[in-house]
Amino acid sequence: MKNKNFTEVCLTQEVVFEGKVIRVQKDTVLLPNGQESTREVVHHPGAVAVAALKDDELIMVRQYRYALGKETLEIPAGKIDPGEEPQACAIRELREETGYQGELKFLGRFNTSPGFADEVIHIYLATNLVWAPLKPDEDEFIGIKAIPLDKAVEMVYKGEFQDAKTALGILLADRNKKSN
Amino acid sequence: MKNKNFTEVCLTQEVVFEGKVIRVQKDTVLLPNGQESTREVVHHPGAVAVAALKDDELIMVRQYRYALGKETLEIPAGKIDPGEEPQACAIRELREETGYQGELKFLGRFNTSPGFADEVIHIYLATNLVWAPLKPDEDEFIGIKAIPLDKAVEMVYKGEFQDAKTALGILLADRNKKSN
Repeated sequence: MKNKNFTEVCLTQEVVFEGKVIRVQKDTVLLPNGQESTREVVHHPGAVAVAALKDDELIMVRQYRYALGKETLEIPAGKIDPGEEPQACAIRELREETGYQGELKFLGRFNTSPGFADEVIHIYLATNLVWAPLKPDEDEFIGIKAIPLDKAVEMVYKGEFQDAKTALGILLADRNKKSN
Repeated sequence: MKNKNFTEVCLTQEVVFEGKVIRVQKDTVLLPNGQESTREVVHHPGAVAVAALKDDELIMVRQYRYALGKETLEIPAGKIDPGEEPQACAIRELREETGYQGELKFLGRFNTSPGFADEVIHIYLATNLVWAPLKPDEDEFIGIKAIPLDKAVEMVYKGEFQDAKTALGILLADRNKKSN
């Protein structure tokens, strides 16, 4: 079946919400069987996340996530600005959120919610960190916590992190370290 | 800084889109520094994903993802129905998408996009698969591909999968297998 064409063809598009961060569309599509259906799509500018290692400790950020109604402990991350390259965004976000700048290595890019959103997150490893702080966004309030990488990996397996990109970023950083 | 209170308090809520799958809100919040800001939030019913192993091969699904405009190869996954338990959803989705039923083990739950969505995905391992097909959703068209687990792990590290829950589910399934 793998060569079967599953493409859904857009028939109509309607922008139902245009926000600061996301744009939401409700489209009508033609299915492979000739029937019609609707698709709700969230357009997002994309994001980066950085597994930043200082002396084998991950520099993590604690912040309030309004969408979840709780504080989380995550690897530093943020949205890509218009026209910004993902790697430049990673350098900027790491400086804004942790104060550190480092040597970056690309670990992978992943869609976060392919069922309803086009958001892609670019994940980097940062090493050889030096202090080079940038002023954070005006509406961002962040605390820092350093966790040994080995302990963070165990925390992933125990389900102690809230979000998928943090879990995946930690496992990719660990693999990268062990394969060097 | 970890005990500092970063909570954002909801001041006003506005539902800007109510769809079949998602509900989008634009809220005004009070920040920790006393300023106001807006938050765009996508509410989602939640989802499951299943790393299903048959004779050390992962049963994966190929499908068109309209939000991405392309076909992807993912672990089986789907939205939770109203009132449905995540594990019951995992059993149903695996039967609908692959035809198999198996013994389930919970591997973890993760938010997919904590910056703008409340979607949570519950990831399971399925083993001892038996053939027990259910009719797929009317607007779902899916092909099946079996990939040896070791090869799938290498594909994760090479960046050959599109989405984060597939990459994470494969790494968690592999770890589970090796720790047994």
